[in-house]
Amino acid sequence: MTHAHLIIADSEHDADMLYASGMFVPDPFIAIALDGEWHGLFSPLEVDRAAKVSRFAGVHLDTPWRNAAEIREWPGLAGCAAAFLASHNTRSISVPASFPLRYADQLRSWGFEVTASAGAFFPERAVKTATEIKYLAQAERLTRQSMQRGEQYLGRCSIGHDNILRDPETGKKVTSDDVRRAIETFLIGKGAMPAHTIVACGRQSSDPHNTGSGYIRAHELIIIDIFPRVLSTGYWGDMTRTYVKGKATPEQKKMYNTVREGQDIGLSMMAAGVDSVQIHTAITAHFDAQGFKTGMVRGKQGGFFHGTGHGVGLEIHEGPRVSTRGEILKAGHVVTCEPGLYYAHIGGVRLEDMVVIRDGGCDNLTRYKRRLEIA
Amino acid sequence: MTHAHLIIADSEHDADMLYASGMFVPDPFIAIALDGEWHGLFSPLEVDRAAKVSRFAGVHLDTPWRNAAEIREWPGLAGCAAAFLASHNTRSISVPASFPLRYADQLRSWGFEVTASAGAFFPERAVKTATEIKYLAQAERLTRQSMQRGEQYLGRCSIGHDNILRDPETGKKVTSDDVRRAIETFLIGKGAMPAHTIVACGRQSSDPHNTGSGYIRAHELIIIDIFPRVLSTGYWGDMTRTYVKGKATPEQKKMYNTVREGQDIGLSMMAAGVDSVQIHTAITAHFDAQGFKTGMVRGKQGGFFHGTGHGVGLEIHEGPRVSTRGEILKAGHVVTCEPGLYYAHIGGVRLEDMVVIRDGGCDNLTRYKRRLEIA
Repeated sequence: MTHAHLIIADSEHDADMLYASGMFVPDPFIAIALDGEWHGLFSPLEVDRAAKVSRFAGVHLDTPWRNAAEIREWPGLAGCAAAFLASHNTRSISVPASFPLRYADQLRSWGFEVTASAGAFFPERAVKTATEIKYLAQAERLTRQSMQRGEQYLGRCSIGHDNILRDPETGKKVTSDDVRRAIETFLIGKGAMPAHTIVACGRQSSDPHNTGSGYIRAHELIIIDIFPRVLSTGYWGDMTRTYVKGKATPEQKKMYNTVREGQDIGLSMMAAGVDSVQIHTAITAHFDAQGFKTGMVRGKQGGFFHGTGHGVGLEIHEGPRVSTRGEILKAGHVVTCEPGLYYAHIGGVRLEDMVVIRDGGCDNLTRYKRRLEIA
Repeated sequence: MTHAHLIIADSEHDADMLYASGMFVPDPFIAIALDGEWHGLFSPLEVDRAAKVSRFAGVHLDTPWRNAAEIREWPGLAGCAAAFLASHNTRSISVPASFPLRYADQLRSWGFEVTASAGAFFPERAVKTATEIKYLAQAERLTRQSMQRGEQYLGRCSIGHDNILRDPETGKKVTSDDVRRAIETFLIGKGAMPAHTIVACGRQSSDPHNTGSGYIRAHELIIIDIFPRVLSTGYWGDMTRTYVKGKATPEQKKMYNTVREGQDIGLSMMAAGVDSVQIHTAITAHFDAQGFKTGMVRGKQGGFFHGTGHGVGLEIHEGPRVSTRGEILKAGHVVTCEPGLYYAHIGGVRLEDMVVIRDGGCDNLTRYKRRLEIA
């Protein structure tokens, strides 16, 4: 009896399915690995395209398996997968941790043994091939260029008597949405899909997940975090810069420089064989030493209270982690280095680059200047 | 002992979580319903924002539950949810069909009884409130306006001696990507996120899921299918038109008119109380009567081989279905009506509108002309 691997998912949202299939399919379908070779089962709607563009060893029309499942009264996609597996004398299946419970319970009720993966379903996804690194570099290049668009737009804005920025063309008050538009219009024109791009000014920037809204004011911290997905490949870019339009205060400058030093510490430590927890700890220690403590201030988190970085690939957040729960970095990992400091009364600073881990160091894919003030 | 409902998911991809929480969170988190009231458990990173913008009855910091879980050696998000549930004397849980198997197996191993929903987790999601219809109408208005941008662009193009279109500004040969850019740049500027917009010309249009690539040629069928998501609300638009730049052949015209008649049949039948399979059957019968048969032609599907429509809401495809597997339509359902015909030697025609089901009829949210030829 053969052991099989099974995924039932669409490949636009499920990165494992995209990894197995190599093609975008908007609706859930079935992928099964037998003896290490992946097979795709497709509806008549998708089978022709799959035969042309997928990376499956075998592409099959699902109709005969649906019919076989119907005779056994096994409904839906789980039934179709079960019929295929049964005909290949397979009753033992590994599935991703995210495998839908309903399908698993159906398969179990039909006598299949289903085991959810405890960790990554494709551990090999964390170590990128040369082609994947090319795609990630391409995504990060577009991200960098879109950051430049945002920065140039802020540069062209003037500062009103109320400290709110004014649009260079219309003279209207500038909002987060205006900056976002300058960034995202560029990305979309290049075939990359931004997702909730952060343009957060002032107090909003002290909440790392606030995407930002309302007016952009001079002399306040502005975090811009851009993470688009290239539509043709499925790979993501990810970078963050922090700006002040006008003049930064000494306090803002000190916080910015401390984060920049923290990022430099991280980037200098990133290399194959390093336990990533050491990187996170070193950055935190530097922040502490500079007087930027982490903890609760008046019921609100302050300081550095997120991880230093995460893997990037077919998902915007994937392994390995660079945080309090470390992992040993390997050559070919692609991770972000994004320390930040956040205080409600000052605002937030975050700087994020994306790097490829190598033996003895790392290659920075972001390669973009860090500059606080925009005149 | 109370029975609880549980979701563990992010709310950007999981529509049930977005429905329960009313806020976008990019990483998975926990939502639990006790006595019909939904509670959200959030990391320190998200809890402030959640308290402000979520629609939860209760917003909780997850830290105490994580700590309680750690003592019991219950890891991860499932452990945190388990600690919260145990402290509320709850051991019986309903979860969505898509609930991750790994979490379910962990919860079961700790003594919880976990049942996956067989159908929709929130059946009430299919029937839209007035607010939801407003959001869907807004999404469809942007979709319509972006279709107009695509149509206008095709109108401005000239036809080269090789029948390939030429860009009105640059004089370069026009590709699917160029048309897509005209459409998607508009959408992104309006805060709507397109996803794999279809611009498929000629033979490509005979494959309903081919997004289209390469040159756009005159006198061939061009299917444009646009389905963006409005970022601020999470609701989708969805519409399709089919064009010929230049002169359509009598065969193309006959196929177009037949699909238009099929769509009119569908739209005229859509009303509360109707079994949607009857709508699909009536359209298929019309196509058959006009000589457009459905079936395999030289190993390729031809004719009308997808459903007539689907629900639209926080997901682009949700209940109810309008297809061979019918459902009774209810007032407040929002569904597409999108018959199509596809033959490799002619190409494809699809026309898609989105409507709100009402007593005695339906309201068309698309309201956009159907015109085959673009001069």
